[in-house]
Amino acid sequence: MVNTTNGNDTTATTVSTTSNGELVLGAGGKPLPPPYKSTGNEALDTLAFLHLLEQLKVQKRSGWIREGVKEPESISDHMCRMALMAMMIPNDGARPLDIPRCVMMALVHDLAEAHVGDITPVEGVPVHVKHDLEEQAMDSFLNEMLGGEGNKDARARFRALFDEYEARETPESKLVKDLDRLELALQAVEYERSQDIRTLAPFFTGSVPNLEHPVVQKWAETLMEERRQLWASRGRAEEEAAGLGGQGVGTSVKKTNSV
Amino acid sequence: MVNTTNGNDTTATTVSTTSNGELVLGAGGKPLPPPYKSTGNEALDTLAFLHLLEQLKVQKRSGWIREGVKEPESISDHMCRMALMAMMIPNDGARPLDIPRCVMMALVHDLAEAHVGDITPVEGVPVHVKHDLEEQAMDSFLNEMLGGEGNKDARARFRALFDEYEARETPESKLVKDLDRLELALQAVEYERSQDIRTLAPFFTGSVPNLEHPVVQKWAETLMEERRQLWASRGRAEEEAAGLGGQGVGTSVKKTNSV
Repeated sequence: MVNTTNGNDTTATTVSTTSNGELVLGAGGKPLPPPYKSTGNEALDTLAFLHLLEQLKVQKRSGWIREGVKEPESISDHMCRMALMAMMIPNDGARPLDIPRCVMMALVHDLAEAHVGDITPVEGVPVHVKHDLEEQAMDSFLNEMLGGEGNKDARARFRALFDEYEARETPESKLVKDLDRLELALQAVEYERSQDIRTLAPFFTGSVPNLEHPVVQKWAETLMEERRQLWASRGRAEEEAAGLGGQGVGTSVKKTNSV
Repeated sequence: MVNTTNGNDTTATTVSTTSNGELVLGAGGKPLPPPYKSTGNEALDTLAFLHLLEQLKVQKRSGWIREGVKEPESISDHMCRMALMAMMIPNDGARPLDIPRCVMMALVHDLAEAHVGDITPVEGVPVHVKHDLEEQAMDSFLNEMLGGEGNKDARARFRALFDEYEARETPESKLVKDLDRLELALQAVEYERSQDIRTLAPFFTGSVPNLEHPVVQKWAETLMEERRQLWASRGRAEEEAAGLGGQGVGTSVKKTNSV
């Protein structure tokens, strides 16, 4: 993963352990290597970061692996389409959004997964543990790999975008979360179509009901109608409806607003 | 690829032909389906574009396939790391760059490949034919898929970024071209390391000698030193040097400048 000339080769068998000596597990229950430590050579540390980014290609999205998808997309495949979708959001005087910032945030929001992998809710890793692992990974990236003077702008950009996304307070971070959800739903329909996977209902009930942005909601409505037609064309209209259990685009948002 | 509810299913056997009735071939010599035509329904056309973007994940980079790389990266894997690398370029008062614009351009520069695939120089498709195919693909994306009123901002953004990259006149487009080259070189070293591929010298002689931006040159120098050590550690130092034939980071640029 990182270059082998500086002793940080993560193909080695060293792994992270807790203070109790327990293994620290990442995505798929695999032991995590310890976070990278600076070599003291800024050029080598920077190269280690460039190589680390390859892990966003190598690591595939866990949800699809679990559901038996063949040749599932990578983490960077997912982020790339999200970023392109951000560029499709219209300028709207009533809801002004910094689109370039949304694009960059889409590319940074899963950056920590380059180290910890794509840990999903069903893997039994508690949310606070996942959060801590991702924070430790970001600290290692920004302070140990990009800690040098030449990378101070890079460091500041990645930190600000990652933190803004995690805080989920700005309109930009909320849009990126919507894109994260819709990109998942799009890919789920695509795998249903191309590989006839039939167990993905939770991917929809966990995503489209929470969409807030009106443009993303509209995309999702068209997608869900397409999905309805796909399942009906396979004689499975009832199964499709049962899987959704009455949930649809934005239904959770509306429910929350009406309380 | 695009949704099947509007008659534009590209899994159908229809293919593009020239006015002489010859097949139009894309990447890997595969017949290209005809470009998408609008259904007249803006929501369906937009969804077709969202699905089209999946092809950037499905289509793998041709150069690696040709060299026998197992599980090669996708087009969007490549663009995602390029975009993240753009975010690493320092603010520089002497060479001001619009970094968010570079990030977006990195994500758009290979967009046409979602339709035509990754056509590489060695496939025998003449450069002007490749260019025409990519222009036709972009026209289809922007006018037939994103032709509606709700997508006028998206259309303008994609068009401007794609054209700016192709013209290669602005500092931003030149940086993105540098990132395109370095990303290739990085991935080549990574495949040399992980899969012991030994035929990639042309990937380096075709990329690193042309790098112009000083920060990207510096990254490349560290990478090429790492590569030298990798090959030396495998007892192949002479083979590595012979493959490069005396070419190194920025050597073609310096030559051009000194003429």
